[in-house]
Amino acid sequence: MSQESCEFCKIVRKQAPVSIVYEDNMFLAFLDFKPFTEGHTLVIPKKHYEAIYDITDRELAGLFMIVKKVAIMVKHAMSADRISVVQNNGRAADQHIFHIHVHVIPRYVGQKLPKPEEVPMTSRERLDAIAKLIKKQLVIRPPLPK
Amino acid sequence: MSQESCEFCKIVRKQAPVSIVYEDNMFLAFLDFKPFTEGHTLVIPKKHYEAIYDITDRELAGLFMIVKKVAIMVKHAMSADRISVVQNNGRAADQHIFHIHVHVIPRYVGQKLPKPEEVPMTSRERLDAIAKLIKKQLVIRPPLPK
Repeated sequence: MSQESCEFCKIVRKQAPVSIVYEDNMFLAFLDFKPFTEGHTLVIPKKHYEAIYDITDRELAGLFMIVKKVAIMVKHAMSADRISVVQNNGRAADQHIFHIHVHVIPRYVGQKLPKPEEVPMTSRERLDAIAKLIKKQLVIRPPLPK
Repeated sequence: MSQESCEFCKIVRKQAPVSIVYEDNMFLAFLDFKPFTEGHTLVIPKKHYEAIYDITDRELAGLFMIVKKVAIMVKHAMSADRISVVQNNGRAADQHIFHIHVHVIPRYVGQKLPKPEEVPMTSRERLDAIAKLIKKQLVIRPPLPK
């Protein structure tokens, strides 16, 4: 189920370019083009849900398993001291897109986050380079011998 | 498994008083005594894990199902415009207790969050009154007839 005008549904349908960090048949993780810090990633379910209130328990559970996976990948790739996981719900100041999404934000000791309005856009080339770094952390293990 | 010196394990063992919003055999939700806004709740697994990196997938899934439940309860009880869900990992500025916890924070249109150091402590009486309001939202349905 996808919504015609939803920016994230467009991304899921590959109608808007993003730098993908992780993808499977239910979930997608891609870099925020206005990152608080480099490597700031958004994780979404492919199916459209507005908020934590209406996503199914099953998809919510799956979503946060991907968030865990992505948090570990981003932490290693960006040599982050810590990872903040943020998920906003509701039609107020900080939620701009009404398709549930989870922010995975690398953080560093002594560093303050910029104000959202002060964050510049990152070029596609730079985002692709960072996504490549993060994707390298997804260790593909060989299948078990039969 | 609980850790002797961990503040949240002490709460789980009922050795430190808190105003409980939700409890089952695996998870506990209670009010932050220095809330960003009234109704600011912390959700934890009873078992000690340090961060999102080391909690099991099963408990992570369960944790966020409780976060969803608590988010809906807090939203209704506090008439919040929105709910922010925040989970910090790692030994840096904002994580003070190294037992994984998820913040559920009621937010209001036009209201900015205070700085953590500016937040005053709330009295136990006030916290208990708010916890009571939130707990009322947990609708207990009668068991199905046999």
